[in-house]
Amino acid sequence: MFSSYPHYDTVATGLALAIEIIGTLAFALTGIVIAARKRLDIVGVSMVCGLSAFGGGTLRDILLDRRPFFWVEHHQWLWVILALCVIAMIFFRSKDIELTEKMIQVPDALGLALFTISGTQIALVTGSPLLIAVLMGVMTAIFGGVLRDIACNEIPQAFTDHRPYAVIAFMGSWVYIGMEHWFMNEWLSSLIAFSTIVILRLFAIQFNIVIPSWMRK
Amino acid sequence: MFSSYPHYDTVATGLALAIEIIGTLAFALTGIVIAARKRLDIVGVSMVCGLSAFGGGTLRDILLDRRPFFWVEHHQWLWVILALCVIAMIFFRSKDIELTEKMIQVPDALGLALFTISGTQIALVTGSPLLIAVLMGVMTAIFGGVLRDIACNEIPQAFTDHRPYAVIAFMGSWVYIGMEHWFMNEWLSSLIAFSTIVILRLFAIQFNIVIPSWMRK
Amino acid sequence: MFSSYPHYDTVATGLALAIEIIGTLAFALTGIVIAARKRLDIVGVSMVCGLSAFGGGTLRDILLDRRPFFWVEHHQWLWVILALCVIAMIFFRSKDIELTEKMIQVPDALGLALFTISGTQIALVTGSPLLIAVLMGVMTAIFGGVLRDIACNEIPQAFTDHRPYAVIAFMGSWVYIGMEHWFMNEWLSSLIAFSTIVILRLFAIQFNIVIPSWMRK
Repeated sequence: MFSSYPHYDTVATGLALAIEIIGTLAFALTGIVIAARKRLDIVGVSMVCGLSAFGGGTLRDILLDRRPFFWVEHHQWLWVILALCVIAMIFFRSKDIELTEKMIQVPDALGLALFTISGTQIALVTGSPLLIAVLMGVMTAIFGGVLRDIACNEIPQAFTDHRPYAVIAFMGSWVYIGMEHWFMNEWLSSLIAFSTIVILRLFAIQFNIVIPSWMRK
Repeated sequence: MFSSYPHYDTVATGLALAIEIIGTLAFALTGIVIAARKRLDIVGVSMVCGLSAFGGGTLRDILLDRRPFFWVEHHQWLWVILALCVIAMIFFRSKDIELTEKMIQVPDALGLALFTISGTQIALVTGSPLLIAVLMGVMTAIFGGVLRDIACNEIPQAFTDHRPYAVIAFMGSWVYIGMEHWFMNEWLSSLIAFSTIVILRLFAIQFNIVIPSWMRK
Repeated sequence: MFSSYPHYDTVATGLALAIEIIGTLAFALTGIVIAARKRLDIVGVSMVCGLSAFGGGTLRDILLDRRPFFWVEHHQWLWVILALCVIAMIFFRSKDIELTEKMIQVPDALGLALFTISGTQIALVTGSPLLIAVLMGVMTAIFGGVLRDIACNEIPQAFTDHRPYAVIAFMGSWVYIGMEHWFMNEWLSSLIAFSTIVILRLFAIQFNIVIPSWMRK
């Protein structure tokens, strides 16, 4: 996470923390949306919401054998998730579902970028080979959603919707690694890779881009 | 587990061991029931049955980075599970499914209480914050069933049936923590929290109680 | 893996390496087949393909707390998987699906035998009890497929198709343990158990054998 670099100046730290909060909330909201569609109860909503927000990072940490998990170290986040779920169950209506989906596209792109880069960084720090670090970055970003969809008995959206989401995370993670190799500066590399992912993602949404599919039937 | 405290007197230890056996068998039987409905083969029945019985504790131990797992340390249990599955496949008929579901409600409530409290205790011993300990208690109790349902291609019952099950585990786990803070006595706190969970659960079944749902469509 | 025993003569090592490559590719191809049926996108195809090939060993290693994973240590395999997926998406047609399923039966049997025995060996080396070692062997062989099917929103084929697959792995793993106890020779035991599994599996396919099912409705 950006927020754990004490030598950043205060503005950058504050900005990074804000992005982290926005990204986590956006990921949590994607869980609320599918939980609302499936009419889950408060237990299901909370678990699916928590999976969306923290599942990717938790899986990465299990694979890298890292502890404590983010949600154990910052367990006050769990109260935020729980409150979000209760509020959603009280105030959410059908028309809010689509509105939420539309509104979270930008925050979700920020989360995609942040979690990809932080996942890549964490894997590099633990000495992973480059390709593994990229894979860990992608998994941090997408496996919250994958676990969310599996728990809701759906084929994961990231596996089947032919939209560039994980693909952009994959490219952005390589951009980060290339920049870091080139500039030897973690902060600048993060910034460039972060912007690349956000811009590509918003571009893909705006122009409704799909990735190549099976060539023949 | 209660049974691992050598300083308990023999009656309490015997009672706790009995509850552990009853609870584990009840959880295993919930796996048999769904496996029978789905007409799984012996491999599927055994795996789903084992997931139901040991999945929650195993997930908790992976998250807390504890080894060995219960079913590795007490691997004779795996033969019990396997025998149970073979017997079920030979003698189980459709009408037995509903009968079993009705008969395991009380043992299942005992298992819910036992696994919640033992999960909470184990998490506290490893130094988890209170909320994390509660979450680990709840996950120990419900994630066997969650993994069982996911393996059978269903939305987990604990996420969607609007019955107080995980919610009671959540409350009971806080009762345990409160009592332990108050009385400074693990044994007495366990007893009170255990009774609370069992009574609330049987009460909820008896009076067909549902938890609040989405307020609006 | 056989290939990690440096004292084997070169022919045996080469043979074992060849089997490892063939087995891993066969497991990967089962992922391609189901991903093609579900029309997944490149992300889904790659992930499902990777799960099929490496999921069983990864789960075993998480349960045994072993690191690094096979695919982290040999990450060039990930490029092979990715290339395989891209090629499949370009050239695969509907009629190729059934052809592939038929063609991979023999390689898949080799993979079944290899992963069962290597899983059993690895669990024994880490000091697991015999039954746990057998279970780890079986899980190494079948849980790639189980995770593949869960990710594709299907009941795992290994749980429901009433074909002897995991059952043969179970028997073969015991054969390995018995032979090793008898002959005190890892190489000879591996060879006998490997042949047993492959022969039983091909026999079962050839004669369309099913395992006993639920006795009554």
